[in-house]
Amino acid sequence: MSNPLRIGLAGLGTVGASVIRLLKRQADALTSRTARRIEVVAVSARDRGRDRGVDLADVEWLDDPVALARHEGVDIFVELIGGADGPALDAVTAALAAGRSCVTANKALLAKHGLRLARLAEEKGAALSFEASVAGGIPIVKTLREGLAGNQIERVYGVLNGTCNYILSRMEQERLSFADCLAEAQRLGYAEADPTFDVGGFDTAHKLAILTSLAFGTAIDAEAVNVEGIESIRLADLEAADELGYRVKLLGVARRTPDGIEQRVHPTMVPKSSSVAQVMGVTNAVTIDADAVHELTLVGPGAGGEATASAVVADIADIARGVRSKPFGLPVAALARAEPAPMQLHLGGYYIRLCAFDRPGAAAAIASRFAERDISLESIVQRRRPGVGAGPAGTAPVILITYATHEKTLREALEAAVADGFLAEKPQFIRIERE
Amino acid sequence: MSNPLRIGLAGLGTVGASVIRLLKRQADALTSRTARRIEVVAVSARDRGRDRGVDLADVEWLDDPVALARHEGVDIFVELIGGADGPALDAVTAALAAGRSCVTANKALLAKHGLRLARLAEEKGAALSFEASVAGGIPIVKTLREGLAGNQIERVYGVLNGTCNYILSRMEQERLSFADCLAEAQRLGYAEADPTFDVGGFDTAHKLAILTSLAFGTAIDAEAVNVEGIESIRLADLEAADELGYRVKLLGVARRTPDGIEQRVHPTMVPKSSSVAQVMGVTNAVTIDADAVHELTLVGPGAGGEATASAVVADIADIARGVRSKPFGLPVAALARAEPAPMQLHLGGYYIRLCAFDRPGAAAAIASRFAERDISLESIVQRRRPGVGAGPAGTAPVILITYATHEKTLREALEAAVADGFLAEKPQFIRIERE
Repeated sequence: MSNPLRIGLAGLGTVGASVIRLLKRQADALTSRTARRIEVVAVSARDRGRDRGVDLADVEWLDDPVALARHEGVDIFVELIGGADGPALDAVTAALAAGRSCVTANKALLAKHGLRLARLAEEKGAALSFEASVAGGIPIVKTLREGLAGNQIERVYGVLNGTCNYILSRMEQERLSFADCLAEAQRLGYAEADPTFDVGGFDTAHKLAILTSLAFGTAIDAEAVNVEGIESIRLADLEAADELGYRVKLLGVARRTPDGIEQRVHPTMVPKSSSVAQVMGVTNAVTIDADAVHELTLVGPGAGGEATASAVVADIADIARGVRSKPFGLPVAALARAEPAPMQLHLGGYYIRLCAFDRPGAAAAIASRFAERDISLESIVQRRRPGVGAGPAGTAPVILITYATHEKTLREALEAAVADGFLAEKPQFIRIERE
Repeated sequence: MSNPLRIGLAGLGTVGASVIRLLKRQADALTSRTARRIEVVAVSARDRGRDRGVDLADVEWLDDPVALARHEGVDIFVELIGGADGPALDAVTAALAAGRSCVTANKALLAKHGLRLARLAEEKGAALSFEASVAGGIPIVKTLREGLAGNQIERVYGVLNGTCNYILSRMEQERLSFADCLAEAQRLGYAEADPTFDVGGFDTAHKLAILTSLAFGTAIDAEAVNVEGIESIRLADLEAADELGYRVKLLGVARRTPDGIEQRVHPTMVPKSSSVAQVMGVTNAVTIDADAVHELTLVGPGAGGEATASAVVADIADIARGVRSKPFGLPVAALARAEPAPMQLHLGGYYIRLCAFDRPGAAAAIASRFAERDISLESIVQRRRPGVGAGPAGTAPVILITYATHEKTLREALEAAVADGFLAEKPQFIRIERE
């Protein structure tokens, strides 16, 4: 048996405490699997006095995470502080610079500095592992980096934010408004007091940027992600989706296109029969389309202390076994600069909800704005009955589903319809994603 | 760049030819990922003349797979011959004995000789990898062996045989008999001329035995799997399942119980809302229940040349990167001898379909046979109308759903009901599996 593998852990929130618990609970099995005894020898966190339900009596306490990262008595530095910059960045940089392997759950850090940190890890022969940064307990990083090594990946997409999925699931199931569901999610601790990071799609965008790099062998580029949140989704949209055989999910989608790599986060209509449509509540799911494996879907817990800790511990176990995977699968020098595909060139179907003045011929006039741009309509529904989806008095909702068209063309058609003066409100549109 | 990694491949069926194609198609990416050029240098197959759509001009041909396995010019031996014994066993044994790493898709070989081969691999410091042996392109072996290293696994179950799932899906969707769907599957090439291995559940049992060892750290024991096939499933069962909110799937289930490890393969009623119930046609799915990650489901292609080759190539890439995972996750000496839990102690709900003589009080008399053994019934439906599920004239189908009970008790109740003389046919029962 080799010497114990000594862990220094910075950040003792829910995930940090769970990592310590899991390492203890699975100590014998992990020793057997890795031929190393894994021991947390030092920690760092803000509040020294707080009871975290774990025994820290034999563990050295450092106030400064950077000092912990540089600690000579630590073999692996685990960063669970969070934040794209500040102490998390300083500590991971310090650990890697000292040739110390790092495990992190920090998607924001990776989205912003992943390429630079991977280069540093490579130079120093250290591991930089981040299974926990995307989709919690789902081993999606390992799957993309190792499990699909023989594939050319065409698309990776999924439900990557439990808060948004919880809100959309509740809106659909309980026929509640976005505001009511958000308030409920905040009460239950599923959403932050400032929910922008989640409901605005930014959390999903960070995770998607990581998946894109792993899937396509490209340099991580979070700036290139087109981001829209779920704030604009009305109950009327979910009800119309339901009638038409769809559900609305906040998806992160990365796709290889003739115009480059498309990275986008937005509310998306998915057929009810699709795998991602089945994913309700705080569960996450990722689907990969690839040339050899065709379609692979992983479904599991996207958050939670123990589920996220499961991913952290798997990374630690790999490092303990001596595995040194390249952070993004390829050497940093081989990661291609991804040409971002502009959203205007996005090709896909669209759901459109218009609030039209209730005049004879309104729907026909609107439809002609699509026809003159060669946008084919799969369905057009104009509702005169009051109730569901109803707008102001004297208006009627018109729901359109288009066949595949370019986003630029679609936006032009909508602008023309607005200019015609038939619409009482700004048009709503939601992109459709098919399996 | 190191020397090329030289592959010797035995068995040039659909999967073998796909492995050669994938290695060529992804050659540059694989070289970048592994820092080794991967080259197929020698092959062995029965029919030298057959056109397989791959260029074998520069490849050495050996007639004897054992000679290929021992070939000094080969670094990794890939076994795609098939069969639990014979040339596959001889060749893998020869390769490992020579310290040569092996990749195989051969579930029958592993189910029967996995422990012995893993011991040999360990002694010789060679890899023995078999991602392709279970669930085709789904990276379930890697997930269990590495991705969930921090978990204690409680249950692993799934749809592991595409032939059976295709037949059951078609029976349900098209309201066809088992015999008609089997004939159709044979016409389409989804089922063999002798379908016993698939429809009898034996293929699933081999795969389950491998998953059990990986999940629970136990010595592989395919003999301990309780196996029932789908031949007994009638359209009446699928229709009753549908009405009651269930689907019927052939599941392989391995579970940690107080009485030992339960390994069973049988037609199973699963709630329509469950992940495995969504899996239709030739798709496979595996769900894992574990203490930290709770529930994780992987869905993908269970068979097919390219999907299976994807798994073979991922194994080759891991070996090329220098990774030497223990075949079953733990050293062979640490694999526990699993105490098999007897089926008589199985605890679960049951669906029961009885063909009762249409006499007053038949259903009540049958129900009392359950009541006197403290078996609680969730529902009891006696149909007097003709049509669906109807048996011989003068009989009426009775459908029962029980709450959790022991299999022994259930069987006793059914025997008592048979002895009462109320039943015109042998009772049908199907175990219920819940998420």
